[in-house]
Parts: sequence; C-alpha cells; structure tokens
Amino acid sequence: MAHGYQGGRLDLPFTGICTFAKKPYVADWDAIEADAAILGAPFDAGTQWRAGARFGPRSVREASTLFSFGHAGAYDHEDDVTYLGEDVRIVDMGDADIIHTDTLKSHANIRAGVEAALKAGALPVVIGGDHSVNIPCIEAYEGHAPFHVLQIDAHLDFVDERHGVTRGHGNPMRRAAEKPWVSGLTQVGIRNVSSTAREGYEAAREMGSDILSVRQARALGPQGVAARLPKGVPVYITLDIDAFCPSIAPGTGTPSHGGFLYYDVLELLQAVARDHPVVGIDLVEVAPDYDPTGSTAILAAQVLMNLLGCVFHARSIGGLGGNFAYF
Amino acid sequence: MAHGYQGGRLDLPFTGICTFAKKPYVADWDAIEADAAILGAPFDAGTQWRAGARFGPRSVREASTLFSFGHAGAYDHEDDVTYLGEDVRIVDMGDADIIHTDTLKSHANIRAGVEAALKAGALPVVIGGDHSVNIPCIEAYEGHAPFHVLQIDAHLDFVDERHGVTRGHGNPMRRAAEKPWVSGLTQVGIRNVSSTAREGYEAAREMGSDILSVRQARALGPQGVAARLPKGVPVYITLDIDAFCPSIAPGTGTPSHGGFLYYDVLELLQAVARDHPVVGIDLVEVAPDYDPTGSTAILAAQVLMNLLGCVFHARSIGGLGGNFAYF
Amino acid sequence: MAHGYQGGRLDLPFTGICTFAKKPYVADWDAIEADAAILGAPFDAGTQWRAGARFGPRSVREASTLFSFGHAGAYDHEDDVTYLGEDVRIVDMGDADIIHTDTLKSHANIRAGVEAALKAGALPVVIGGDHSVNIPCIEAYEGHAPFHVLQIDAHLDFVDERHGVTRGHGNPMRRAAEKPWVSGLTQVGIRNVSSTAREGYEAAREMGSDILSVRQARALGPQGVAARLPKGVPVYITLDIDAFCPSIAPGTGTPSHGGFLYYDVLELLQAVARDHPVVGIDLVEVAPDYDPTGSTAILAAQVLMNLLGCVFHARSIGGLGGNFAYF
Amino acid sequence: MAHGYQGGRLDLPFTGICTFAKKPYVADWDAIEADAAILGAPFDAGTQWRAGARFGPRSVREASTLFSFGHAGAYDHEDDVTYLGEDVRIVDMGDADIIHTDTLKSHANIRAGVEAALKAGALPVVIGGDHSVNIPCIEAYEGHAPFHVLQIDAHLDFVDERHGVTRGHGNPMRRAAEKPWVSGLTQVGIRNVSSTAREGYEAAREMGSDILSVRQARALGPQGVAARLPKGVPVYITLDIDAFCPSIAPGTGTPSHGGFLYYDVLELLQAVARDHPVVGIDLVEVAPDYDPTGSTAILAAQVLMNLLGCVFHARSIGGLGGNFAYF
Amino acid sequence: MAHGYQGGRLDLPFTGICTFAKKPYVADWDAIEADAAILGAPFDAGTQWRAGARFGPRSVREASTLFSFGHAGAYDHEDDVTYLGEDVRIVDMGDADIIHTDTLKSHANIRAGVEAALKAGALPVVIGGDHSVNIPCIEAYEGHAPFHVLQIDAHLDFVDERHGVTRGHGNPMRRAAEKPWVSGLTQVGIRNVSSTAREGYEAAREMGSDILSVRQARALGPQGVAARLPKGVPVYITLDIDAFCPSIAPGTGTPSHGGFLYYDVLELLQAVARDHPVVGIDLVEVAPDYDPTGSTAILAAQVLMNLLGCVFHARSIGGLGGNFAYF
Amino acid sequence: MAHGYQGGRLDLPFTGICTFAKKPYVADWDAIEADAAILGAPFDAGTQWRAGARFGPRSVREASTLFSFGHAGAYDHEDDVTYLGEDVRIVDMGDADIIHTDTLKSHANIRAGVEAALKAGALPVVIGGDHSVNIPCIEAYEGHAPFHVLQIDAHLDFVDERHGVTRGHGNPMRRAAEKPWVSGLTQVGIRNVSSTAREGYEAAREMGSDILSVRQARALGPQGVAARLPKGVPVYITLDIDAFCPSIAPGTGTPSHGGFLYYDVLELLQAVARDHPVVGIDLVEVAPDYDPTGSTAILAAQVLMNLLGCVFHARSIGGLGGNFAYF
Repeated sequence: MAHGYQGGRLDLPFTGICTFAKKPYVADWDAIEADAAILGAPFDAGTQWRAGARFGPRSVREASTLFSFGHAGAYDHEDDVTYLGEDVRIVDMGDADIIHTDTLKSHANIRAGVEAALKAGALPVVIGGDHSVNIPCIEAYEGHAPFHVLQIDAHLDFVDERHGVTRGHGNPMRRAAEKPWVSGLTQVGIRNVSSTAREGYEAAREMGSDILSVRQARALGPQGVAARLPKGVPVYITLDIDAFCPSIAPGTGTPSHGGFLYYDVLELLQAVARDHPVVGIDLVEVAPDYDPTGSTAILAAQVLMNLLGCVFHARSIGGLGGNFAYF
Repeated sequence: MAHGYQGGRLDLPFTGICTFAKKPYVADWDAIEADAAILGAPFDAGTQWRAGARFGPRSVREASTLFSFGHAGAYDHEDDVTYLGEDVRIVDMGDADIIHTDTLKSHANIRAGVEAALKAGALPVVIGGDHSVNIPCIEAYEGHAPFHVLQIDAHLDFVDERHGVTRGHGNPMRRAAEKPWVSGLTQVGIRNVSSTAREGYEAAREMGSDILSVRQARALGPQGVAARLPKGVPVYITLDIDAFCPSIAPGTGTPSHGGFLYYDVLELLQAVARDHPVVGIDLVEVAPDYDPTGSTAILAAQVLMNLLGCVFHARSIGGLGGNFAYF
Repeated sequence: MAHGYQGGRLDLPFTGICTFAKKPYVADWDAIEADAAILGAPFDAGTQWRAGARFGPRSVREASTLFSFGHAGAYDHEDDVTYLGEDVRIVDMGDADIIHTDTLKSHANIRAGVEAALKAGALPVVIGGDHSVNIPCIEAYEGHAPFHVLQIDAHLDFVDERHGVTRGHGNPMRRAAEKPWVSGLTQVGIRNVSSTAREGYEAAREMGSDILSVRQARALGPQGVAARLPKGVPVYITLDIDAFCPSIAPGTGTPSHGGFLYYDVLELLQAVARDHPVVGIDLVEVAPDYDPTGSTAILAAQVLMNLLGCVFHARSIGGLGGNFAYF
Repeated sequence: MAHGYQGGRLDLPFTGICTFAKKPYVADWDAIEADAAILGAPFDAGTQWRAGARFGPRSVREASTLFSFGHAGAYDHEDDVTYLGEDVRIVDMGDADIIHTDTLKSHANIRAGVEAALKAGALPVVIGGDHSVNIPCIEAYEGHAPFHVLQIDAHLDFVDERHGVTRGHGNPMRRAAEKPWVSGLTQVGIRNVSSTAREGYEAAREMGSDILSVRQARALGPQGVAARLPKGVPVYITLDIDAFCPSIAPGTGTPSHGGFLYYDVLELLQAVARDHPVVGIDLVEVAPDYDPTGSTAILAAQVLMNLLGCVFHARSIGGLGGNFAYF
Repeated sequence: MAHGYQGGRLDLPFTGICTFAKKPYVADWDAIEADAAILGAPFDAGTQWRAGARFGPRSVREASTLFSFGHAGAYDHEDDVTYLGEDVRIVDMGDADIIHTDTLKSHANIRAGVEAALKAGALPVVIGGDHSVNIPCIEAYEGHAPFHVLQIDAHLDFVDERHGVTRGHGNPMRRAAEKPWVSGLTQVGIRNVSSTAREGYEAAREMGSDILSVRQARALGPQGVAARLPKGVPVYITLDIDAFCPSIAPGTGTPSHGGFLYYDVLELLQAVARDHPVVGIDLVEVAPDYDPTGSTAILAAQVLMNLLGCVFHARSIGGLGGNFAYF
Repeated sequence: MAHGYQGGRLDLPFTGICTFAKKPYVADWDAIEADAAILGAPFDAGTQWRAGARFGPRSVREASTLFSFGHAGAYDHEDDVTYLGEDVRIVDMGDADIIHTDTLKSHANIRAGVEAALKAGALPVVIGGDHSVNIPCIEAYEGHAPFHVLQIDAHLDFVDERHGVTRGHGNPMRRAAEKPWVSGLTQVGIRNVSSTAREGYEAAREMGSDILSVRQARALGPQGVAARLPKGVPVYITLDIDAFCPSIAPGTGTPSHGGFLYYDVLELLQAVARDHPVVGIDLVEVAPDYDPTGSTAILAAQVLMNLLGCVFHARSIGGLGGNFAYF
C-alpha cells in the first residue's frame, strides 16, 4: 500500500473511526467470522432515574481506543502474558436498531443481534443501554444449553411487575431466573436500598439465587466468590457498571455508594474466566452525560478488554475456562 | 406567625422548596382553585437523539425561583406594568406519574392531569418532557370547543408513522392536526433538515398548516406572524425550546442552529396573548444535562413567566386576549 | 381519589416536587407533627475558598428522591431490616430565610428553625450551607440537657477569632466547645494542613476534644471510635461532607485528600446511633457546582437516609440509642 | 539576561503567571507608578442567587493572557490603530483582602485599594466580585471632583434597603446616587423582572437617572446612547457582565435573557471613551463556575482590554476623552 | 438481508458507528469511489492557547449523525429542495496518521490523504485539527490548476515566522499565499486583536488579500461578499470555527467575541457554492473539551452538511458552481 | 504599611495572584535565592491521547493557594510537626517558554530553567506539562553527581523509538536510563496495558530497573518499597499524576484504573524523603480540562506541599534525607 495506511500507522488512540478496540466493523450480520462479536444495544427507556445509557456504546467504543494501539496484543507485566494477540478475532457488529417509544421492538432487535453472533459461533459481547437489554440477550439463548448467570451489580433487579412493567431495568434478573436455560444466578455487589423490596429478595432466594453484598464479597475474596459458582458450568456474565463505586463509575443512571473498586471485580472476572466457559457478556448502564472525565467509559473499556483477554487466554492454555464447545 | 415565615421572609431565590415560581403545591387534583395550574410531564422516551427531558420540570421549577422574589408582582419598566400581581392565582400540581417502558400509560397520566386542570377552570401549563407529551395534552381537550395550535419549534414534528411509532416526539403536530377540535396550525421557526421528510410538509400544508421558518418569521415581524393566526380564535401554544438558537437554549435533545433569539419569541407571544384567548400552554424539550450554565432552564422559566404575565394582563385590561369564557 | 394520585403512583425518582425524600412540606413551623424535621440552611458566606453550599439543600433534596420510591420503607438485605417504615414521620420544613451580607440575621433565622423543630419534639436535621450553620444549630439547644458533639470532618474548625471573624466556617467547633450544654467533642477525620494552626489543636485538647485522623480512626475501627464517646450520652452529629475522600465527595468547598470512604462513616454512624440517643444532626458543605456527576449529593442523601434509618430503628428495638426522652 | 527570559520569549498565552494581561504585579500599593492599576475585588457575599464571583478576578486575569502575546500592542485592522503600546503603563495590584462573614471590612479593604490607585494618579480598574463592590469603589472618590456614572447592566440595582441590607448587589446604584460627588447616572441594558420594584424605578428617575432597556438602547444606537451623557463630563463606568446576553456571558450569578451582544457594548464604550474622561472602571459579576467554556471570562477580558485601549488612545489623540486632568 | 440492517432500520441518530453522516468507511485509500471524501486531520500541536482539536474529527462525526437519519436526502422547506440525495456518493476515509512531537511527519500524512482523495476525483473535505492542517491540505494541490482561497476565520493567520515556527496555526494563510497555485485570498470575519501584527496585515494586502471584518461583511451582505471573489474561479474554502460567535461555537481553542452567526456564514457559503466550483474544504479548530453542550460540533456538522448539499446541488442544476471539471 | 497589605492580610485562598503557594515570583532566573524553585513546563505535544497538560502549571498553582493561608507554616496533628515554616525559602520561577510545533526548542527552554535553579543551589521542582518534560529535566543534571530516579506512574514510559519519536511522553524513562548520571530506576505503580510492549519491559529490567505494580507495592508497604532504593543515594522523583487512581486524579491524559490512593503515595514519599537527599522533583500530566471538580489539581498541590515539607523537615532534623551537600 503506497499510502502506508495498513502497514505503518502509529495509530494513536485519538485517531480513526471508533469501533470497539478499532476492530473491523461487520455490517452484514450474516457474514460474521470472529471469536467475539461486539454489539451495541443503545436502549435506555427502561431507566427509573437518569437516562442517557443510549450513548453508552459510543462512549465505550471511544474509550476502548485508548487500549488499542500497539500491534502485538497487550502485555501485562504482572501476569507476564500478552493478551489478545492476533490470533483472537474480534469484530464490531455496530448497534441493534432502536425504536423509540417501543420497548418490545427494540428488545427484539437486540435479540436478533445476539442470535446472529451465536449463529456465527462468536462470543456475544453486548454494550448497553440500560440493564433491561439483558432481557433480550438472555432470550436469544433459547434452545442453547443451560448456563449460570453471574450478575455484578448494585441492585438486585428482581422485580416481577409493577404498574404493568416487566421489561424495565429493575426486572432483568427476575426474567432470567424464569428461563429454563438459566440454571442459577449469583448476584454480587448488591447493597443498600434498592427498587427491589423484601419480597423480591425472598423470591430470588427461593429461585436459587446466591446474593452477596460488596462487604460480603470482599470478606470471601475474589477466589472465594468465584468458588461459589457451580464448578465448570458455563457462565453468562452481566455487569452493571453501577456495581462499582461512584468514585470510579459516576457515569451511570443510578449510582450507589459503597461499590466495588477495580481489582475487586477484575480478580473475580479473572477467576471466573479461568474456571468457566464464558458464553455471553453484557456490560450495561454506562451513561456518558454523567461522566465528565471519561472515567466510567474508560473503566468499562478496560474491564471488557481485560475480561476478553482472560477468556481467550483460558482457551489458549486449556482448562475449564477454555472449553469453548458451547459455541 | 411567630416564626415570621409567611410575613417577613426576604426569600432569596436560592432558598426554599422548588415549586414553580414558589407557588403553592396542590397534590390533590380534585382541589385545584387557581387561574393557572402548572403540571410537570417528565416523559422523554419519545426522543430520537439525546434524552434527559425527564428532568425538564425540575430544572424549570428551580430556574423559576430566580423570578419569584419580591411580593408585589413583577414590574416591567419598558411596559410600565406590574405583572402577575396577587390577584393571579397560580398553583403547581406536581408531575404526572410516568411508567417507564410504557408510553401509553405515561401519556394517559399526563392527559389526566390536564383534564383535572381544565375541570377546575384553570389554564393548563405543562412543562415537558419531550414533545410527545403534547399528544396527551391535546387529547385532554376532547369535548371542548375548537382552538388553533401555535407551535414554535425548530422541527415540523409532522411524521405520521415510522416503524410503528405514532407517539414519539416527531409525531405530535400530525396527531394534533387529526383532531376535530384543532381548527388549524401555525408552525413557526421550522428550519433546516428535519426528521420530517418532504411528504410530511406536503401533508401539513394539505391539512391547513401555515409553516414559517425563522427567517420568514423575522421578515414578517412578530406582529406580522401573529396577524396570520385566525382573528380572535382561542389558541393553544406549544413551545419547543429548540425553536430558540442553541446560543441561549443548548440544553435540549436536538438543537438546531439558526433559531430564534429571545425577543423574537417574546414579542410574538405578547402579540398572540393580547389578541387571542390562550387556552393551553406546553413548553417542552428542556434537557438540563446539556445545560451546564442553566441558561436554557432560565430561558424557559423567563418565557413562561412573561407569557403568563401577558395572558393575565390581557384579562385585566379586557380585549380579545382577555376572553376567558373558554374555561 | 378518581385521579389515583395518592393511591396508585409508581412515583419514579425523577417525578414530583423535591422535598427531602418526597416527604410532606410543612410551611407553618408551629404545626410540625413529626419524628424528624428537615431544615435547609442555605448560608455559605462563611466559606474561605469555594462558595456554593447555598445550593446544598436543593441538591440533597433532589438526590434524596433516588432513595424515595417504594411504599414500604427501605429493605436492607445485609441487615435483613426494613428501615424508615410508615411509622416514622418525617417532614420537610423548607429553608431558613437567609439575609445576604448579614451573617448574624441569617444565623438567627437558622436557630429559629431548629428551635421550632425542638419545640415540636422532632429530631432536627439540618442541611447546610457551610459549616458555620452549625453555630446557630448548637445555640438553639440553649436550655436543653447537655449532649456530646460528634464531628466528622477533614478540618478541626476550632479557630477562635481572626480579623474579627468568629462565625465563619472555621469557627464552629470552638463555638460549640464554649457552650455549657456541650459536654464534650469527638472530632474524627481531621487531617492534613488546615486553617486551624497548632494553637487551635492545643486549645481543643485543653477543652476536652478527642481528635482522630482518618488513619487513626481506621486503626481503631468504627466500633472502636464509637466506643470512645461517653457511654449512653446523647449525641449531636455534625457531618462535614469533606470528611469523605474527594473521590466520592468532590462537590464541596475545601476538599481534602485522604478522607473517609463510605463504609468508614456508615458503620461509625450505625454504631453511634445504636448506643446513643441522637439529639440533632447537621450535614454541611455540599456544593453542587463542584459536583458535576451528582455523586456528592447522592452520598449526602444516602448517608442521611441511612442515619435516620438507624436512629429510628434503635428506637423500635429499644436500647441506648432508642432513648428519646431527650425530646 | 543570559537565560533570555525578558528579551526573547515567544510567551504563548498559556505560559506564565496570570497577572492581568501579564503586566507587572505591584504588591506595595505605595509604589504604584502606572497609567492604569488593576485591582481584584473577590467579594461575593452580596449575591442573591448564584455565588462564585469571588473567582472572577482569577478567571479574568487568566483569560486576559489570551490577549497579551505580541510585543508591540494590539493592532486593530478595522480602526487601523495599534492600541496599548508600550507607552501605556498598566500594573496589577493583586486583590483587596476579603474578610468572610464581614461585608463592611471587605468593602473597606476594596476602598483602600481604589484610594491607593487614585493617590498614584492611576486609573482604577476593579474586577469583581459581585456588584456590591461598586459601593466602596464609588466611596473611594470621596473628596474628588464630581463625575457621572454609566452603568451597563441587566438590573437597576437601586434597592434602598430590605431586611436591613444596604450593601448587597442590589443596592449599589442607590448608594452611588446618594453621593454628592456623583452628578448623575445613565443606566443602560435594564430589562425584564428585577429585584428592584416599581418604587425603585421611581426613586431612580427622581434622583435623575436615565434608564434605558436593551431595545431602547439599540433603537438609539451606541452613538445615540453616548450622546445622552452630559457632554464632556468625567465618567465612571460600572459594567455588570450580566448586561450581556447569556449566550456570550452565561458565567454570572443572575443571568437575564435579552441582553446586549458584543458590538452593542463595545461601540458604546468606544463612543463614551472618545468624548469623556474615564475616571474609573469596574467590571463585576463574572462567576467562572457557571462558565464552562470560558466564554464569559474571555468576554470580560476582551472588553476591558478594548476599553483601556480606547481610553488611552483618546489621550494620545487629544479631544474630550483624553482629558486626564482629573487625576 | 435477513437481519434487515440495510433495508429496514429506523437508524436513530444515537445508534451505530460514527462515520461522517453514517457514510461508508473506506480504509483503503486506493479504492475511493466517491464524489466527496471526508478526512480527519486530528493534529493540534500547532495551537497557541487551548489544545484539544485532535478530538475535532470524532466530535464532528458524532454530531453529524444527528443529520443523517431518513433515507431520501434532506428536505429543506425554505428552498423546497431535497439535498444530498442518493446520487451523491460520500465516503469517510478515517484519519490521517498523527506522529506526536513531529509536525512535519503529521503534516505529510495529512497531505497524503488529500492527495488520495484528489487522485480519486473526490472533493476533499478535511476536518481538523487546528488550522495548521490547512498547510498540508493546500500543499496537496501542487500541480493542480490554480484556485482562490476563501478563509472564514476570526484571525488572519498570516504570520510568516516567529521563533522558527512556520507551520503553526498562526501561519497557514501566509503559507497558502506563497503557493503559485493559489491565485488569491479572501479573508472574512477577521476581527479584534490577533496574533498577527500590523506587518502581517500589510503583507497580506500586498500579496493580494481582501480582508473583511464581521461588521464589514455584514454591511456588504452575503451576496456582496461573495461577489468580491473573482468570478467563476475555483474556490478552496477553509473555515475556522472561531469565525463564529462564541455563543454558538465556544468549543474552540481561541474564541473571539463578535463573530458570525449561523445565517451569516450559511448564506455566504451558499452564494459561493452557487457561483464557483468548490475544489476543497477544510473545517478546523473544533475542540470538544470546551463544548460541553455539543453546540460547536453540531454547528460544524450542520454547516458541512449544508455546504456539501449546496455544492452538489449546484452540480445538479448546472451553472458556475456546478463545473466539476477541476477533478 | 498604611494599606496593611503585608502585615495584616487574612489572605483567604481565593484572593491574590496565583504563584505556587503564593510564594514570590522571580522573573530574573539569575537572581534566584531560594531553597526550592518552582518551574512550570507547560508542554503537552508529547501526549498520545488527551492533551491539555499545558494548563497543568496554572491549575496546580491555583490549587496550591488552598494550602497557603496562615502565616506560620502548616501544622500536622498526626506528626505533631509544623512544616514549611518561614525558614524555608520557596520561589516561583514562572514557566519555561514553549514553542508550539517545536519539541526540541521547548525542551531546551525547560532544561535552561532547571539549570538556573541548580546553579542557584535551589531544589528544582517542575510542574508539567506531559511526561516528556522529564527528558530535559534529567538532561539539566549533566555534569552533576549521579542519582537514582524514583518514578511513580501508571505507565513504564520506556519506549525507545517509534516512527522516529524519541521525546514523547512514552519515552522519558528510557531516555533517563541512558544517562551516565542516572545510577538506576525504581518504577512504581506500573499496571495494565501500556504503550510499552514486552520488549520495553525487558529492556528496562536489563538496564537495571526495579518495576513494581500497585498491588506489588501495596504488598510491600510504603516502607518496603522505599527500602528497595539504594541506601542513602540521592534521588530524583518524577511523579506522573496518573499513578493515582482515576477516582482522585481523573484530570489527566491517559488515566488508568487500579491506581494508588493518597496515603499509598504520601507515605512512600515521606519514607524516601526521610532517607534520601531529594535532588529534583517533577510532577506531570495534570490536565485541568478533564478535572471538572478540581480534585486532580488539589491532589497535585497537596502532594507537592507535603513532599516539600518532608524534604525540608528532613534537613532540619538531620539524617540521610537532610544531606543537602548535593547542591
């Protein structure tokens, strides 16, 4: 190439089109060839306080460019491992089509995107949008083998129905628990007052949830929490950014003080990815209008990049987490 | 009162509970006794770009406190008139109940609020929320005498239906035009590219709309525009804050450059209020997350206060605008 | 109620008039019937660096709405307790009248508000404003039984007088210590350079203060710090938001790094409320202009709601903290 | 100088210590040798809504550096004049000492600064702070020859007394009008509702004020307004930044829509400076916390630099404005 | 396409990957097939005050999505024309590679991008970056037929050299004027103090520049200004966003009050595009860090979309502006 | 002094000219008489993501005023020491001259400033600017006795060369390691993905670096880390503000989650200053445009003030850290 675009760019983070991690954009969802496929789900009509998570996918994509320069993967000196080398194929599917004022159609479009990724044998990685987008994500696995859901969140999100609302951002874990293909839930980071009343907690426990607060999770340690998940079972990870302390994740609709710090979550994800096939990921509730420093979007991108690194490193070294027969 | 709260407060703008203009809050909508009743309609699921108009009512109420100190109305030295003296009774009804993910229920609750104000013989003044809240506002007048709609807006909002959406913020003027009790529309400030395609403009013109751009309106002058409304007919005013130039109204979902400046709109409203009974008002699309200086909310409050001043001044001096037989 | 306002609202946090926790507003201070009465004290002329705490009451009230939906109190799954059920009556008194340029009159008005709450037998809960508002708060207890002051703060605020200033935000603890009805002080979180010079510390210690830095408090643990207060004695709690780390409380006039995290303070307050009758609370120095994400106001609201929950839970279960004979 | 600091710097605006226009700082007020002396008056306890004007002097100094590079004055191609060449000596006096909670002492310190400039024969140029700082500025001229006051402002600021307040930011023009050495007032830009009630306007007119709204001033034109000032009389200019439209001056405590645009004021100031000796200047109410883009501070600096340019250009070309016998 | 992405999306502005106007991204610069090609030039090391224009291309692309929904071009009811229909092919080339600390290499990469567009016969449309990126843009036309440069800007940018700097953002018009293939310059909007000293103005005039201030341009009117360009000659348009008033374009490095409003520039561009072949466009100095409301980026996108509409409309209707033989 | 400026000011932090800690400004670098000399190095063309560190010196100076009131040093009650009493002479040199587009000249000017401080026997304290300014700082010590470099940073900054870049903000530690007068490096806080690839880490280790992550440093404790520095050897400290957690230091170009909290760094610095002569300090990468609350600048000022306090306290009590024979 005479202009040297492909071969020789320095490609600083602030340059270029913002796909996730500057990975290729695949507009034709029938033509996905990848190990992981990123899908934006910019729906935020399910929120109960501050909106704006519709701009979550854009902000996370932009922040991801900070972690995307260099040409030979990301070297971590603590682990002495280079993650996400050229053998890991990641694509960006763009966003599901959102229909304002219509929750059902918007959710259906998100489901179609996740189904397309699954059909292509790619790990679906969905960036919300509010936590209600988890509902169509889980629904897209209908007909697939069962899995366990690991929710990392400040809120239990286990409301059954209020004023007729069943697909808002307070409902997804209840909807997940109802699915035959969800074998159980571990809900970590749950704290403080919440939209879920006492009955919701009782229902969750009856339906088999393991509920841990931030302080309880810290007392167990990341390895201890990971050990509570059923051994070797495939895991779907849903990460609400408000699980984190507002000090590092202020940019979200319903922040809650007392949340996780960075290594709390990173080490839990690393432990889970090492010992479980990860069959789906969503990261939700990043609302850039409340993130004037960019800290929240950077956190989301940094966590996603590290989690993907761990998932595909587990495959390369074998072991429980590397079992990708699911796809 | 020993503590002197009622009698002797200086009551600077930054003190006290933020009802609109620090007027009494009436939670019981069956007990409204007022000339004008303020209703918040914090619904923003109808937006197509930036959300956040759900916080519009709060921000306008807070800004309105800037114009609410002093005890004997607001003296205007240009007009040599004291507006909104103690004879004008204004109450704040609080907000309509919003049901996230459910446009129809949210709109029904807004309609109920406007109906309550009308039943009490009070002028309904609705603060949005996105422009879709105009739909239930207009519907609440079902069974009342016909009126003309004056829309001041950057966008025509005349989309019939797309992807099944009929009650988003691009649809309200089409919905209004369909109502038997809406006798016609004047649409002022319309400019630039818009979500409404050529067909929408043609439909609007066929249904009797008078469409004026900012430049066309300025060429006519405020009096000239006002003169195009059918003489003496009752008027419902719907004011989208994005009719204004983003220089003074950046805090809105879909700003459009080339908009009105302050006196463009003020003088038009004064002229209309002088010569027409005003039977309803909504002011929509204030989104404080995009209003870091507060300029937009202050503008909304300043315009509303002045418009109310003109409406009730017209009553006190008689004339066409003072004909309140409508209620 | 035909319009269903009272009975059936979903009442999402972003709707409605912002009283504290959406509790009833009582404008007539002679008619308070409540267990706790919230008073805004929007005075910030006592600040020595950044102003803006005058908007503290508004911002805390708005943030408090996030914690105010649901109808049956706030369920905490860690404690397995539902706090602030319908038996706890809380009202919002609005704000004390502030007279710009006049510190003495403004302070007198704040004192009158606290006196009104005390006269009604309600726990006074004052939201500042800068820390100087603690001066009239403490003065309002003149003639009441003695109590101990627990200050949680970055700064000692023990300056006697400089350039004639005795009622600025660097003076309140000195003023408190002078009162016969203040039996002692515990000052926690004090760190780093401060406006109080060495002499101030020496005077504080001579007047009986127990001064603890953040690191010292952490070494003792929340229970250990609480145990240093005189056993069972009534306690007045004054909480300067700058006691917290700027990571979660940047929105304040004089932030100081190295402050408390959320559970540091929460657990201390829980321990104190369990073992001491709490006879007054003020929370000061929230300055929303420096709080672009809302994190600080949310923290203030979250801490106040939890503290009130603990105070009234102590009453319901009996024990030292539940002794409300003080009022 | 071996290090070349003085001789050879490019001195881009973002480098260096922020004195006004990077002019020399003179800490010893007995040693001023200058044609104009800049004094900061960071007092904002006189505000009735948003505070923060205490940081006005800092923000205007910082913005002024944008206009301070180059070594040979500022060339204006429209006028074909190079303003503020090396013959004009400007110094920065730093700030008056402010005593929190004490309006009288703070005002006294501001007065002392203006007196020092006058004693040195330098034109006092005061940067507020809120508009109450005009009170000690005018008082500092006690014993000097009479002058006319030109106020450019949104608000009349003519309140006599309320709740005992006589030196707040709503009082300065009343205080000025009372002074024997103030021969008259022209008040331009006054509009909309205001803290000044009808009685204030009547009092102002009785005391000889010429009050003009923005629309009235525009109808007259800058030359027409200037012509209403008594011919050749010395003029003191007090410029409240809220005279301007919030579109360019949002960063102020009490913005008011419908204000002046840039050339409205610039051309008025040029006309006045050409035909009147300017004997004092204050520019007040810049509040950088509400100025996220810096637009307001840049406006203040740009206007001050241009006004000083006109004042000293008038001296250099002779004529009425160049009569500096006053000092 | 089964997933319906191409055919049936509603495609609201907040969804999808942010290329300019959601147009196709062409990474291979040898494979451009388009009428216009957008190139980002995120270089800001040429700035003399505030940096951040490196994020200009991203912010303008994001803002452009607001104007990119709908499927059949943009209907303008004032002109009764649908602009940018499907016959106009626009592609996004992404960004030139920037080498930090190395101005020459960065500029060379920008030049390569413009050369690629020209080679493909596409109109180059460059989004800066600071105004220094105009230097390599103009250089890329070496060997092409001569053209006239229309600069719309607050600053003359005609500095020859200072401290060795010849390719900063104060130099581009001097560099352009030196090129044999630049036949002349019209410089519009120039005002106030500037980094260009008197000598620069004199040099510009000697080299044939026609310099007009905002007030001079307004006195002539848009048609009058356009008429000063040499009749029918091809024109390269360089638009510095600081030509506009800071009220609508605060998000730029060196804002200058007194600038153009929206229609001032729009009508000038329309007039020029109608009567001249436009052979290149750059729009520079958008710095989103100073644009908290997004107003500046929206303005840039709105102006670019309209200018492109006019350029290609001129082609479709023939006439002077439609002469595209240049490419 | 009649005006009382020197003797009797209260001198609140928000008043006065912003030199560092309100210390005297010395424009003539040949006339420095001080123990420590502050130099601004506002160069940010070395950044690879967000720029803006050019305003770092201004923001840190402004924040430093918060720690500068009082007249008798800063009393720390935990240490029972008054730091930075009147015996410690600190001056502010202003800023090095920056030449936009020219990295080499800008770096040369920074070097000249550090050389001037060294020549005067003052401890150089440089405020960046991006981390590339460390390169000329280290170069200025050419000919002086060797020292060890302690880097506290998120990033290794050990890139040798890419695309010809050798003096960007990813290169300084490589450049330092090459110098004969740098005897070794300790690099603390290094974490996560970085611009430095595996080869850079290997090169660093080969050149003798001791690399510690945040988690590794915490496991060792501050004393443990300090003990790894060669005993008693002079130390140059380079502190990149992004070493800290974005929760307290969001205002920087390339934030990285998982960083140090306040006491982590404070206690390390105290330990090092106690046991090593500190021969130079730079603090870099504060970018106020991303610091809306001021938290980052306050952190930088607070750390610098404390570090200076420790350095000069070590001198006053003797011991290893107090050996100032280096100068």
